[in-house]
Amino acid sequence: MEFSGGSRLDPYVDRYAERTHGMTTSEIRALFAVANRPEIISMGGGSPFVSALPLDAIGEMTAKIVAERGAQALQYMGGQGDPRLRELICGVMALEGISASPDDVVVTVGSQQALDVVSRIFLDPGDVVIAEAPSYVGALGTFTQYQADVVHVQMDDAGLVPEALRAAIAQVAASGRRAKFLYTVPNYHNPAGITLVEERRDEIIAICAEANLLILEDNPYGLLGFDGPPLPALRARATEGVIYLGSFSKTFASGVRVGWAVAPPGVKEKLVMASEATTLCPVALSQYVVAEFLAHHPWQEQVKVYRELYRARRDACLDALAASFPTGSSWTHPAGGFYVWVTLPEGVDAKAMLPRAIQGRVAYVPGTGFYADGQGRRNLRLSYSLPDPERVREGVRRLAAVLDEEFEIVSTFGAGALDA
Amino acid sequence: MEFSGGSRLDPYVDRYAERTHGMTTSEIRALFAVANRPEIISMGGGSPFVSALPLDAIGEMTAKIVAERGAQALQYMGGQGDPRLRELICGVMALEGISASPDDVVVTVGSQQALDVVSRIFLDPGDVVIAEAPSYVGALGTFTQYQADVVHVQMDDAGLVPEALRAAIAQVAASGRRAKFLYTVPNYHNPAGITLVEERRDEIIAICAEANLLILEDNPYGLLGFDGPPLPALRARATEGVIYLGSFSKTFASGVRVGWAVAPPGVKEKLVMASEATTLCPVALSQYVVAEFLAHHPWQEQVKVYRELYRARRDACLDALAASFPTGSSWTHPAGGFYVWVTLPEGVDAKAMLPRAIQGRVAYVPGTGFYADGQGRRNLRLSYSLPDPERVREGVRRLAAVLDEEFEIVSTFGAGALDA
Repeated sequence: MEFSGGSRLDPYVDRYAERTHGMTTSEIRALFAVANRPEIISMGGGSPFVSALPLDAIGEMTAKIVAERGAQALQYMGGQGDPRLRELICGVMALEGISASPDDVVVTVGSQQALDVVSRIFLDPGDVVIAEAPSYVGALGTFTQYQADVVHVQMDDAGLVPEALRAAIAQVAASGRRAKFLYTVPNYHNPAGITLVEERRDEIIAICAEANLLILEDNPYGLLGFDGPPLPALRARATEGVIYLGSFSKTFASGVRVGWAVAPPGVKEKLVMASEATTLCPVALSQYVVAEFLAHHPWQEQVKVYRELYRARRDACLDALAASFPTGSSWTHPAGGFYVWVTLPEGVDAKAMLPRAIQGRVAYVPGTGFYADGQGRRNLRLSYSLPDPERVREGVRRLAAVLDEEFEIVSTFGAGALDA
Repeated sequence: MEFSGGSRLDPYVDRYAERTHGMTTSEIRALFAVANRPEIISMGGGSPFVSALPLDAIGEMTAKIVAERGAQALQYMGGQGDPRLRELICGVMALEGISASPDDVVVTVGSQQALDVVSRIFLDPGDVVIAEAPSYVGALGTFTQYQADVVHVQMDDAGLVPEALRAAIAQVAASGRRAKFLYTVPNYHNPAGITLVEERRDEIIAICAEANLLILEDNPYGLLGFDGPPLPALRARATEGVIYLGSFSKTFASGVRVGWAVAPPGVKEKLVMASEATTLCPVALSQYVVAEFLAHHPWQEQVKVYRELYRARRDACLDALAASFPTGSSWTHPAGGFYVWVTLPEGVDAKAMLPRAIQGRVAYVPGTGFYADGQGRRNLRLSYSLPDPERVREGVRRLAAVLDEEFEIVSTFGAGALDA
């Protein structure tokens, strides 16, 4: 018998759980394979530029941890994570106005695991998650695996629109379904590159409190703003009703897989039990490395290095878009983080175009993956975090050339010619 | 408002998912806090003796990885895991007779994550998992979070009893429920310390094949046998119908959190998607460290070091049990791995006794946690892996003294006096 990677000949097909029916290969996943080919400029994955880290110093530091504290650093530990790291995390969060105790913190295997365990303890099949339109593809994938429905809420340049949030809550209630939380990335949104302005933050919190709706605040990029000090987190303005997710993937390194959740005590206990069932405990070695880096290296200087580096890449991206993209396209102007969200001219399908873009040696993530409801065909996400400014510029130029060809095809053969 | 760690005053109590109702704090988890106090001899957790590793050399190796290949080792990677590590894993598995391709391997965050994602893709609420009696507490916790029912099958000194397995399969079918897989730890069973004899292996496979029942073979201890070469894995005898789980937690170090699953192609694809939704990708740094250790260190010599070390501790444990435990108690005689499974005399409750044992400065895991159905009150698991032989002996002696006191209480006040 022969298997071809699909499930057509899969003898187990009638035995899978119901939840697998929503499992589809994500665009980001398919891109990982392609992005590694050196001739392609990948503006796909949201990868930090870890080469900017002091790798020799981190290597030495890690060697010392293993040699001197290997008995702990290479061993299991408690499911809530290293107490010392949890204390240091409270110091990191203080920069965004959050006051929390190490007891409130659960260390996770990247904030993706935090998303998973929050979903696990709150979501029954058919429950609703309210999320920005568009929203982080990895979160949508997790909500789908828990068989929840996502209801999107419109953003404008100032972030989540309060009136649209009110309407979505009312609509879910009217349909007899149950919204369990609002999932939001308030700072330098993935994929939209938009930030929720300070004036709206209290209003969003008030709307959710009134509706008895938990807020799941996902904030991996908060310290990576280009224009002044970070905004106070939602969790800084409301200790009740907010579960906060943080990550070292963008401010330090994604390959150690260290993120965290902050939650009220009852929720926290359940998060720990859920993550124990998932991975037993977070990674001891990684936690020791991050704690050591926070405690004994000028880590805020490192964040500043990252910030300046990403600012230059953002500038390169926006300049190149303005110089080369066709009339009828538009894009967001991120004040931090990794992403520009592009809307293509009428008639162009970003997903159908991707294979031709890759042929043109540039990669991006098509917009549809960031919606649970089929929107986003004219959208794409560009990440400027990994390639240097010159490569960012070249990538955008290549993409503009691919777009020009799309228009040529349309003008010659009609719009239908572009379908995948 | 005040929270006391329980959920009595938890304002979110009416919002949790159905699956949280089965979440209870595990005995192992409670023990982690206690086991760290130096005056207590912990025979609780299944922790490897990582101090036996060449920590200086591993430290240096890790420093080199970070300094020279940090751009990859500190970055995200594909969800299936590092191709080089997957190839090396195939070499590890060959020692147990398994022939597999790197394509079949999914690297996970410890084999606990493999348990989680296998459960995720196969288990709907109400499905049945067939498992040995007793069975690994961490697996039972995961199955419970997926709202599956566990049906236990008896073991004898030769492992899972084929007739009992047939009967369990028939019983589940007769009750109209659906068994999705047999979960089994064939080698040096956790917690029972029993090994499935070679003569029964084909029969177990045949019974499952006939019933169209998948086998989930969990094999963290297979290379840690004290009496000669490892037995061929179930996966070595059947490539179809078996999902195999391996781990570096016991043969290298638990604190890097690297395990793996081997599955047929259709299943494998779904496992990758499920683990992406859980942690995005396994830990790059950990995978590089393990791969480097496998490729450039005499790792089989290291496994031998562990084996001899655990053999001495097993001997100390069995000697001390024979010398000090009361008539009416019995225990298994593990030929490898970490655990002895003790049955206490009639009238003693291992769970109720635990606080008194901890007062007596020795810790273990009570038997009830290893059953889904309330069995195991007279049982406890002793791990001899972490304390040195003299401490193992002293731990068993302390426990025997606690048992003597239990009997004194019973003879003075009657059996009811021992209830917690």
